[in-house]
Amino acid sequence: MNSIITFTTDFGQRDAYAGAMKGVILGVNPLTTLIDITHDVPPQDITAGAMILADAAPYFPPGTLHLAVVDPGVGSDRRLIAARTSRAVYIGPDNGLLSYALVQDPPEIVVSITEKRYWTPRPSSTFHGRDILAPVAAHLSLGTPMEALGPAINDWITMEASQPVAHSDGTITGEVVRIDHFGNLITNLRPEQLPANPPALSFEVSGVLVNRLSRYYAEADGLLAVIGSSGYIEIAMAGGNAALTLKAGVGQKVVVITHTD
Amino acid sequence: MNSIITFTTDFGQRDAYAGAMKGVILGVNPLTTLIDITHDVPPQDITAGAMILADAAPYFPPGTLHLAVVDPGVGSDRRLIAARTSRAVYIGPDNGLLSYALVQDPPEIVVSITEKRYWTPRPSSTFHGRDILAPVAAHLSLGTPMEALGPAINDWITMEASQPVAHSDGTITGEVVRIDHFGNLITNLRPEQLPANPPALSFEVSGVLVNRLSRYYAEADGLLAVIGSSGYIEIAMAGGNAALTLKAGVGQKVVVITHTD
Amino acid sequence: MNSIITFTTDFGQRDAYAGAMKGVILGVNPLTTLIDITHDVPPQDITAGAMILADAAPYFPPGTLHLAVVDPGVGSDRRLIAARTSRAVYIGPDNGLLSYALVQDPPEIVVSITEKRYWTPRPSSTFHGRDILAPVAAHLSLGTPMEALGPAINDWITMEASQPVAHSDGTITGEVVRIDHFGNLITNLRPEQLPANPPALSFEVSGVLVNRLSRYYAEADGLLAVIGSSGYIEIAMAGGNAALTLKAGVGQKVVVITHTD
Repeated sequence: MNSIITFTTDFGQRDAYAGAMKGVILGVNPLTTLIDITHDVPPQDITAGAMILADAAPYFPPGTLHLAVVDPGVGSDRRLIAARTSRAVYIGPDNGLLSYALVQDPPEIVVSITEKRYWTPRPSSTFHGRDILAPVAAHLSLGTPMEALGPAINDWITMEASQPVAHSDGTITGEVVRIDHFGNLITNLRPEQLPANPPALSFEVSGVLVNRLSRYYAEADGLLAVIGSSGYIEIAMAGGNAALTLKAGVGQKVVVITHTD
Repeated sequence: MNSIITFTTDFGQRDAYAGAMKGVILGVNPLTTLIDITHDVPPQDITAGAMILADAAPYFPPGTLHLAVVDPGVGSDRRLIAARTSRAVYIGPDNGLLSYALVQDPPEIVVSITEKRYWTPRPSSTFHGRDILAPVAAHLSLGTPMEALGPAINDWITMEASQPVAHSDGTITGEVVRIDHFGNLITNLRPEQLPANPPALSFEVSGVLVNRLSRYYAEADGLLAVIGSSGYIEIAMAGGNAALTLKAGVGQKVVVITHTD
Repeated sequence: MNSIITFTTDFGQRDAYAGAMKGVILGVNPLTTLIDITHDVPPQDITAGAMILADAAPYFPPGTLHLAVVDPGVGSDRRLIAARTSRAVYIGPDNGLLSYALVQDPPEIVVSITEKRYWTPRPSSTFHGRDILAPVAAHLSLGTPMEALGPAINDWITMEASQPVAHSDGTITGEVVRIDHFGNLITNLRPEQLPANPPALSFEVSGVLVNRLSRYYAEADGLLAVIGSSGYIEIAMAGGNAALTLKAGVGQKVVVITHTD
């Protein structure tokens, strides 16, 4: 049965970990299409993993299964969950990793994965991605119903996403929530949160003022602000790396200033 | 419909970018075989991307679609193009990225991609790889004719590849055009440009003389010159990394000296 | 004909090397499922490649073909081999790279790859992965019998795996054989080599004592010892990187101490 399973993990690419998961899946369902979203989530960084999964998932066709593993609590009593929405199925540890995706694509049912019938016999306590989540995803891809995996739950863990703060003087303080491969500083600011058609607009970051919202990277020289491809404001450097230029990291404040003079 | 789409991009592997492109393609044509050539072209390095694409493309079967995205001008008025040759289809921005492949595999038709029917609705201005090129590639894989994408053009941008210079004293000056993962210095020198059967031959690079052309890496100790797998002379270090040993980078001169005494 | 071919190489991911191999395979058998185990074996590190292949292979379904290329001797007179076991086929240079996998999954037949009919015409002397091993793997996936590739041999190269040493005072000295992406120190110690139910157990590494064997990473704070997912004892750092914390590398001694008082 043809279906798509994606991977979002912090396993890196130099060990056997991602390959072993894929082998297990192909042993259950050899016709699955396996797609790496990334294996380079920073180790144990659940927030970064949650953002990447939420960024990629909307672009996959209906029925895609998204398997995510950033799981520092593996082997402890943290739960493993599967969530079915109208568009997709998400499978991973119940530590917030799936929660940004589930906020934008709310689930019809979430189950706690407890039924051992779909697991590898004698699962290790250090690699549930390979021994539990991979075979469960493969069985779901073959049509196993969610309800067979374990009891429905409604208390899965949801992480609060950081939100910009609007101040009485008209400024808005956002922050950098992620730095991408190009060094673009992705903020938590959405364009619809900015004042409509201000006479002038700038972004203050690391003591530098970046003027106006550009339409694309090559529209400006040097530092610029642009609406990035996931719909948030980014601070970028034309032909360069804004994070290196500004020595800015995740958590860096970005203040939106509307000039009314 | 089964077909192969390859990817050559500077997206890196830690964000959702490559995954989102694949999701879009699978939404249009779920039976495509998706092959990463690389997502690790250095950011915005069109020349490096062009070389890697030209290196890999000849090894794929007829009918393969090669999607390449190194696109610092995304959102500006630079064109997006698709080129069909007798062997393959190439899709990417019109900034020279496809041009090394098209010099070795000349196109029958090149079109400017303007027909929005095959695009994602409301494409962003910062990620045309996902919003325009990916769905266009997927539609081509389903049999959409090139002519439906937009008007034919014949003024696509071709980058000049660097060429060795032969001097009156019999020496030839080439240069390093790329450093590979092993630290091998790949030059722009082809073996057929060297004198046939010289009494002795050496290569001067970073003030070091490398004697004779070895047949394979393990034939010599230390630094050696060899015909690399894409047909150009490489300076390599047996069991080591020539780039680190010689502190050499792209642009480093390599002088071929024929000893006639 | 549907079949799985996996890749374990030191090619890295930024060049055309892995892509070219895949193109060659798809030209022979377009229906193969291609799975990267890793292309990030440290350059020329045959031992690391052998461990990763042996780690991943058991999780793939019967009939999988494992293609491994860490081949500093390419072009010399080192042989290329293919080995068929009851579970899988392994293909690579005869330099020990396949040997850890073949010790755990003993071959029914091993052949030296000499029959040029299945190779790319005019193979290079610097990239046998692409020109010989890839087309041979693809032909095997189509049903070409092993015997057609060349003569059977029984003197393939086997690397000795490092073994812990038990001392008369009851201590056992093992060593770190690999450091994974998380910085976990993977040792050559298996839990069944430790004393059963000792009153107390600790592991001395880099002058630090790590007490008892934890069941999972999150069971302890700081440094801990755990049975890793491939069945060997690992020294890990809860929520951190043990290799950085201990400044430990491959070869680092790990002494098991049983406290009998």
